[in-house]
Amino acid sequence: MTKDRKKSINETYITEEGMDNLWNVWYSELHDGVSGLTLKIDRFHESTSSKFQRIEVIDNKDFGKLLVLYGSLMVADNDNNSYNEMISHVPLFVHATPKQVLIVGGGDCGALTEVLKHPGVKKCTMCEIDKKVVETSEKHFPRLTAGLTDPRAKVIFEDGKEYIGRGGGAYDIVILDLSDPVGPAADLFQKKFHQQVFDQLNDDGILIAQTESPFYNRTTVKALYANLREIFPIVKMYLCFMPIYPSGLWSFAFCSKKYDPLADFDQKRYDKLQLKTRYYNDEVHRAAFALPQFVKDLF
Amino acid sequence: MTKDRKKSINETYITEEGMDNLWNVWYSELHDGVSGLTLKIDRFHESTSSKFQRIEVIDNKDFGKLLVLYGSLMVADNDNNSYNEMISHVPLFVHATPKQVLIVGGGDCGALTEVLKHPGVKKCTMCEIDKKVVETSEKHFPRLTAGLTDPRAKVIFEDGKEYIGRGGGAYDIVILDLSDPVGPAADLFQKKFHQQVFDQLNDDGILIAQTESPFYNRTTVKALYANLREIFPIVKMYLCFMPIYPSGLWSFAFCSKKYDPLADFDQKRYDKLQLKTRYYNDEVHRAAFALPQFVKDLF
Repeated sequence: MTKDRKKSINETYITEEGMDNLWNVWYSELHDGVSGLTLKIDRFHESTSSKFQRIEVIDNKDFGKLLVLYGSLMVADNDNNSYNEMISHVPLFVHATPKQVLIVGGGDCGALTEVLKHPGVKKCTMCEIDKKVVETSEKHFPRLTAGLTDPRAKVIFEDGKEYIGRGGGAYDIVILDLSDPVGPAADLFQKKFHQQVFDQLNDDGILIAQTESPFYNRTTVKALYANLREIFPIVKMYLCFMPIYPSGLWSFAFCSKKYDPLADFDQKRYDKLQLKTRYYNDEVHRAAFALPQFVKDLF
Repeated sequence: MTKDRKKSINETYITEEGMDNLWNVWYSELHDGVSGLTLKIDRFHESTSSKFQRIEVIDNKDFGKLLVLYGSLMVADNDNNSYNEMISHVPLFVHATPKQVLIVGGGDCGALTEVLKHPGVKKCTMCEIDKKVVETSEKHFPRLTAGLTDPRAKVIFEDGKEYIGRGGGAYDIVILDLSDPVGPAADLFQKKFHQQVFDQLNDDGILIAQTESPFYNRTTVKALYANLREIFPIVKMYLCFMPIYPSGLWSFAFCSKKYDPLADFDQKRYDKLQLKTRYYNDEVHRAAFALPQFVKDLF
């Protein structure tokens, strides 16, 4: 599979028309080649590649349109937006005055759109390496990319490592909305990068990182949290149900210089804002930090 | 698929030896034929049938041994026992004095074994229609069936509908640990049956029913809860992550004559008992009742 992907990375397979009415075509995303999700594909809306990765948009009756990057499912019409809502609203309702937000990665723009639902945010910068992911998302996932037209959104197409490496930022919240550590985002899972992010967070800053499946990726999860705990005084894992990600259970690291994700949750602001969400709510915010015993036992 | 299954229901495919070192054999369990879990099978430990259903025990590198009934995954060595622990410990730590417990179904004996970890339980009756499921589980899943040797365990091989239909029971907790509403358990998802259970619960009794995936089975879930709410004064849904069940998110109905699952949770008893679990703990107990917005919106 990897070989084929490499061979074809600079070819465009399908153009405007897509490929419709497919028969017997399946997308199967497997962990270690032995277990995973399988989806009957009715249509390829896109199958192309950028300078950085393969990009596909496929269609399945249960999930609707799905975005696939580097051979991994990223978002779907019918995933209930759980990943984007949980990576965004959890820190935003904990930080007392979140004004400056940086998203590294996040090319589908789902996190950007959620962040900008908070009226207190003055600017949300998104640093995404791959312009083609944003363009593809704009075309196929208008609900996710709605935030792009917000004047507070600033999109930079650059390698997050270089952007953060230059220093000089002063953020209240940084969100690492990265694809898996095997793809173009591999370096952004390293301790050096996390330290650089720490240095550009304000004194009460929060970093949120997606930290893979605690069911499948136990070694990665353990290493990531060990790194983060050497840098941040407060590091807590939280979980969400994401049906298109490996195992269906996904984790995030809440890393903070000052705020506690439960004690500092701003219930009043939550009640006032009356967010329209498909997954996140105040009860889910609190519940997400309760870890099943097999997850606790990882640490 | 259904046709093949019917044709073969009275044949035994493989006997003691099983089938080992399989190449390129996959088990795929699909919702509506278009999305689901796919597992590479290294071995068939069993592939047989009882009077009631097909029974298979297969092996996969990620999940270990898996029990398949009627073409649906039931339990696995590496599923973290989440389903069995959540269907059992939630009511047992809420009821003040759970002494008489009835499990309807539950042939893998995982729930029975969890229930009997509570020293206050005087008797746990399990009414399972299919003796062969219990025998198969004893052979392949000794950790799940450990409770069978407990003198407080009483196993009856009978149709749950007939057993409950005769009346005369007086239970503190009834657990409906049933396979999907399409198989031999179909009638046990009906309102008439739930009413009969209600009548045989003590005045402070609790019924727990597995209620399918709120992601995939929305129509079934809505109908089930509407039924249950006509019978029980307190009906609350709770969730667990179960990686081998459709979508990975699974639901249970906590139906009670008196107890609230959160206010009446017995923290002292929980702390004292020091249960060894793989999924359940006191934080998970509380968190399980927080429903994502798309689940809340079902009701």
